[in-house]
Formats: sequence, C-alpha cells, structure tokens
Amino acid sequence: MAVVGIGLMGGSLSLALRGKCAHIAGVARRTEVAEEAVRLGVADSAGCCLAEVVRGADIVVLATPVRHILATIPMAAAEMRRGALLVDLGSTKAQVVSAMNAIPAAVGVAAVGGHPMCGKEVGGLKSADAAIFRGATFVLASTARTTDEAMLLARELVEATGAHPLLLSAERHDRAVALVSHMPYLLASALVHAESEARTGDPVTAMLAASGFRDTSRLAASQVDMMLSILLTNREPVKAALGLFREKLLEVEGLLDSPAELETWMSRAQGVRKEMFQ
Amino acid sequence: MAVVGIGLMGGSLSLALRGKCAHIAGVARRTEVAEEAVRLGVADSAGCCLAEVVRGADIVVLATPVRHILATIPMAAAEMRRGALLVDLGSTKAQVVSAMNAIPAAVGVAAVGGHPMCGKEVGGLKSADAAIFRGATFVLASTARTTDEAMLLARELVEATGAHPLLLSAERHDRAVALVSHMPYLLASALVHAESEARTGDPVTAMLAASGFRDTSRLAASQVDMMLSILLTNREPVKAALGLFREKLLEVEGLLDSPAELETWMSRAQGVRKEMFQ
Repeated sequence: MAVVGIGLMGGSLSLALRGKCAHIAGVARRTEVAEEAVRLGVADSAGCCLAEVVRGADIVVLATPVRHILATIPMAAAEMRRGALLVDLGSTKAQVVSAMNAIPAAVGVAAVGGHPMCGKEVGGLKSADAAIFRGATFVLASTARTTDEAMLLARELVEATGAHPLLLSAERHDRAVALVSHMPYLLASALVHAESEARTGDPVTAMLAASGFRDTSRLAASQVDMMLSILLTNREPVKAALGLFREKLLEVEGLLDSPAELETWMSRAQGVRKEMFQ
Repeated sequence: MAVVGIGLMGGSLSLALRGKCAHIAGVARRTEVAEEAVRLGVADSAGCCLAEVVRGADIVVLATPVRHILATIPMAAAEMRRGALLVDLGSTKAQVVSAMNAIPAAVGVAAVGGHPMCGKEVGGLKSADAAIFRGATFVLASTARTTDEAMLLARELVEATGAHPLLLSAERHDRAVALVSHMPYLLASALVHAESEARTGDPVTAMLAASGFRDTSRLAASQVDMMLSILLTNREPVKAALGLFREKLLEVEGLLDSPAELETWMSRAQGVRKEMFQ
C-alpha cells in the first residue's frame, strides 16, 4: 500500500493498517517527513517520488488536501499497476469522483472515493493516531472506475481500520458535510471575527470568554490549507447550508421577544442535541 | 452563609467554601434536594423556607436562574440582618444590579452583583464541583448598595473559591457575555435546528455529524430555564451581538468566491483563536 501524504490522516491510516498490509510505503513532499515517518514506525518505507512509490503498490491512498488530491489522481493513475486500487481520504467528494471518472478506462486502474468522518484540529505526522478510525463512519463513494472487487477491497480496508463503511453518492455526502462540518467551521471562524471586532471596543470581551466560547469556536483553529481546499471544492452546498442557518438565526432573533415560543424553540434544540450525542 | 438555590452553581460554591465559613445553610425549592444537599455534605443544613434560612446569615448568595434572582432580591433583603451582605451568581447583571439598587437604604443590607465565569452544561446538585471556580474569572459589579466593606468581603469570598475577582460595570459585563456566551448558545441551537431541518430531506446528515458538529453545538444542550432567564434579561446586547455576527457571516459568504481573501480571513480567525486558547 502506498500512502500519499503522511500527515494526520495518512499517518493515522498507516498506523491503523501496520501489520495488516505486507508493506506500507509513504510519499511525503519533504525528505525529513519521509524519514521521520519511517523512524516513527508509521510506514515501512517512504520517499518523495510519487511515481516511484505508487508503481509498486496494490492500493494507493491519497491523503493530502482535496485540491492536491484532484491534481494527483491523473498522475498516480498513470503510474499505477493494472488492477490496482486508488482510494482517497479527501473531505469533499464530488470533484474527486469526477477526477476519478476521468481516468481512462484503458489504464485498468480501479478507483473509489473515501472520507473517514474523524480527525483532529491539529494536523501533521506527529498527531497521527490509529485510534481516530475506531467506530468512526467512513464514507465510500463509487465512481465510473469502481468494480465490485474494488468496492469489496475498499470496504475491507475501511473495516481493517476499525471504522464502519457507509456507501454514499458524492452529492449526498457533500451536501451533508457542508451542513455538519464545513458550515460549523465557518460559524466558529465568524464567531472569532465577531469577538475580535468587539474586543477593539472593549478588551474585557476576550477576558470573559470561557468554555462555551472555547468549544463553539474550536473549529476556527483547524488547518487553513485543508479547510480552504474543502470550501473551494464544496462552494454551492456550503452556500446552501449557510442560507438555511441564516434562516434559523433570524427565526430565533424574532423569538427573543416571545418568551413562550423562544422556550419551545430552545427545548427542541436541546432535545435534538441530547439525542444526537448522549 | 446562606445559599439560595443549591444546584450546579450554588452547590459548587458551597463545596468550595465548606470549612472556610462557620456554617453554610442551603435553600432549595424541594425538600428532597435540601435533604440531599446535607447528605452529600454540600451544606451544613438546608431547608425550603427562604425567610428562615436567610435571617441567620451574614452572607446570602442567590444562585438560581436570573429571573428568579430578580424576584428573590427584595424578599431576601427584607428578611436579612442589618449589615449582612447579599451577593448573586446570576449570568446577567444589569437587571440584577437595578433590583439591588432598589433595596431601600434604610434596610441596612449591602449588595454586590456577581458572576463566576465557569459552569458545566449539566446542571443540578449532583454535578456540583468545587473545582469549577479554580482559576476562573469571577465578575463583581457594584451597586448603589455596595459599601467598601461589602466589596472587600465579596472579593474575599471570590478568592476563597480559587477564582479571580474582576470588577466590572453591569453594562460592560452584559455586553461582553452577550457576545462570548449568550450568542454562542444561540448559534449552537440554530445549528441544531438547521441540521434537524436538513435531516428531514436526507437522514444521512445526522449520520455524518462528527466531533466538529458535536463541539460547535455543545451549548445547545444547556439548561433551558437558565438560558431563557439569561436571554430574556439581556435582549438588547444579545441582539447587537447577533447583528455583528451576521455581518461577519455575510462577509465570509462573499469571500467564498475569492480564494486569496478567504484564506487571509481564515488565517486571521485561526491566529486569534490560537492566541486565545493555547
């Protein structure tokens, strides 16, 4: 197995599959990272030459930010063995699946889109952790290059990490994550910007920020390159999610002068939230 | 010391001051809670009659939701000893300070508004924990009934819990917490409502909600009675905070088609967030 990008996600996948694959070879942009991956036992071998590493692999996993994955798909496919499987871990799927569909059938490479619903806001090889997959949902999206055997192998790979595979079309995936992941990131960041502006009027604003602010704003600390890639490849679903959110915000703003209705609205949110996470 | 309301905040304060006060007497609405408070060692004694309990106290702490505190201030003041100190733990301060200002000077009771910037989203006596005060900011707001001695005693009480006192006007406090606490609660709840509506279109939305959604929506699980009291006694600052937030949200929505500016905006949010919490 070749893992292209051995940061948080690629590194964690490698760790989760060490001992379950005959050989895991990493591809990093920088030599130091490749060396560190081997030193830390994340990969059996590692290098900086994509072509060289993927040529020998039965499975190639792309684990870089989405825009880089899009550029890598044709390059990797051109170098891969016939019958080998290409999977990605990108956070948006529509553009990735399009790029996989565009792999010429004659190349003889199978391709499945993937997105493990787990992570940490701190990126990098040092944060890699096999445990993040355990019990997580791992979305698989089929493409024009997905054979039955390829999907079976992809499912096996997912199950070997301890995650649960969920077959989903790229469009359904992207609409759902726009709402439960990409929009929350933007809300967290807009909250930080609002606090930052309010603080210029009264510095005490920052001093009173406690655990509620900390949690609601946590996603604003996410890796910018990864999130930028996500937002730029999922613009329309994100805009639709923001539109829906703005409706809900205007709704509650209108209820601030109607205590009974406000209480009902708050109780409903509390009930749904508790049911989701307890 | 009498503590009116021995739920999460009142119970935690009692636990933090056990052994530092000669006697802590709790007031609960229900007999079972009063009995449990004594059984759990949260208070030395407890009862359901406000008048009876506060009559014997040198310090009376009101630790119920804000709207209940507002109703209790005149009742407690009427029963308290001359020279005794009234403090509250309410989450908004302007209306509390007004109610304290309205205590007739002839009653001879001193009063200071208070708000410890800590808590948990799970309320109730069973969640009480002395440790929540340690290192937290504890806002004190002076009133027309605050003497120098009263403020000194209030500071001493705060320091005895392990918190840091911060003197602030009720208006500055309320504006700041509207932004860093009450608005984040509304954002979390509106996010849950948006997810709930999206889910009716595609149930997979809920299945893909992971740790990002969990953290951003955590405050939606807050106690409804407490939050309703807060929102209804801090409407204008909350509306102003929502207005500022909506501006920031429209700003980033506009940037979704300008990658370079979007990246700058995201990096600024990331920088401010990291500086606040790391």
